[in-house]
Amino acid sequence: MEPTDRVRVVSLEGDSRTDREDMLAVEEPLEIRVRPGPDRKPASFVVTMRTPGQDDELAAGLLFAEGVLQSRTDLVSLDRPADPRISPEVRSNVLLATVSPEAFERAARLKRGTVMGSACGVCGKTSIDNVLPVDSPPLASSLRLSASFLYALPARLREHQSIFSKTGGLHAAALFRAVDGRLAGVCEDIGRHNATDKLVGRSLLAGELPLEDSVLMVSGRAGFEIVQKAYNAGVPIVAAVSAPSSLAVELADAGGITLVGFLRDRRFNVYTHARRVESARETMP
Amino acid sequence: MEPTDRVRVVSLEGDSRTDREDMLAVEEPLEIRVRPGPDRKPASFVVTMRTPGQDDELAAGLLFAEGVLQSRTDLVSLDRPADPRISPEVRSNVLLATVSPEAFERAARLKRGTVMGSACGVCGKTSIDNVLPVDSPPLASSLRLSASFLYALPARLREHQSIFSKTGGLHAAALFRAVDGRLAGVCEDIGRHNATDKLVGRSLLAGELPLEDSVLMVSGRAGFEIVQKAYNAGVPIVAAVSAPSSLAVELADAGGITLVGFLRDRRFNVYTHARRVESARETMP
Repeated sequence: MEPTDRVRVVSLEGDSRTDREDMLAVEEPLEIRVRPGPDRKPASFVVTMRTPGQDDELAAGLLFAEGVLQSRTDLVSLDRPADPRISPEVRSNVLLATVSPEAFERAARLKRGTVMGSACGVCGKTSIDNVLPVDSPPLASSLRLSASFLYALPARLREHQSIFSKTGGLHAAALFRAVDGRLAGVCEDIGRHNATDKLVGRSLLAGELPLEDSVLMVSGRAGFEIVQKAYNAGVPIVAAVSAPSSLAVELADAGGITLVGFLRDRRFNVYTHARRVESARETMP
Repeated sequence: MEPTDRVRVVSLEGDSRTDREDMLAVEEPLEIRVRPGPDRKPASFVVTMRTPGQDDELAAGLLFAEGVLQSRTDLVSLDRPADPRISPEVRSNVLLATVSPEAFERAARLKRGTVMGSACGVCGKTSIDNVLPVDSPPLASSLRLSASFLYALPARLREHQSIFSKTGGLHAAALFRAVDGRLAGVCEDIGRHNATDKLVGRSLLAGELPLEDSVLMVSGRAGFEIVQKAYNAGVPIVAAVSAPSSLAVELADAGGITLVGFLRDRRFNVYTHARRVESARETMP
């Protein structure tokens, strides 16, 4: 299944009206089922709307974000359903995650909240205190970056985004190495949280977590769930092209994460833990 | 609780670094509890992240979108918890919906999906066929609008958005009357689906559903859930400033909704049911 789809549209501009082809971001449900062994019956864990592509990364990242997978070794395999009675369309929208018995137990305990979205992570919680990682220590990373390093990221992200994503049809999440600013990965999806899950899932599958020496950049705004995912993946600096929410700032503050917003045109704001960002002048030779 | 919050930020621009105040969109969880009578024990129905403000509208719209409320008469009242042991912060993030016995039963049946987000409406469904309203007839509205009518909407929406929303910190959803283009209502939230739920909830509370002679406009992209909410509210024309998703187009096609995307700078695309849109020239005198 492709991440984009062609459709016919009627295009109006001023007084003119033309029929033409247009490209759309595909949005389809992905059901993730978990099982404690390849011969065991799987249980449906979650259905999320997503842009097809990097489904393995999304499933791994989402199961990590939800606390089902705690390390690479919790994940045995990711497979499509083998049953020949399942139609190809349904098969392309289902993934079977074979996980460790401990991970399967955690998934079973989480089952009460089976829909994923902007509220994931707050299921059944009634106060923001429960959303903040009160029991978890703040990230202590001593990473420091120059303003110039951050100024360069938006252009570097755009270079690596697909043409479609540049048109604004998809969100992008990218990981940059702090040591040399190299782009370590970029993932795209119609949902910003999915793009981030894909990126973290990609690192989990490669055995690269925690991402202590990396900067996470997202194309749009930073809601609390982006900060939460960064915290879980150990990323000490999160930058967004647009505004953060109040809860994202609270969570970044409590979690020891440097949160950067409005990163564009050689300017940005630092909302929390600004000690990790040096002015451009300080780093001049 | 306010929809925006002031924070201190470190602002970097070129070589300069300044400390200043900035305004953020507030993002807080709202728990909606339902009960079949004012003296009955409430059951938690959903927790959604939202920007505070218009909570009654959001709760009414969300309960309508989920199928719990089918008409104004299903909703008896919306109240804050009265228990004095509940802290003011928690109280401001909880709403008690007293509903008809039939609505309460529907809520109890829906309880398995208790987290709300971009995936709402697909809980437990594994195929897009289940997301499309196959059992429901397409909207048959004979409403027709000129391209000029639509060209005028973005400016009219911006006029009525709060300053904060114009900066991109919040999504907006607006309802325009087809007869004269008058703005009938605008709602804002950090989540686009919340902004739409608030708008529909406002109409439900005012006894104005279905909205057969209205145009729904959203500030960002149109995912399938926006089209689904428009369908449920009976809105025949949906316009978005940015791109629709493939599933939004499929759903609009099946639901008889005219879906307009990229509405800005005197241009737009019509993805479905273009018969409702006349070229600017056709409507010239």
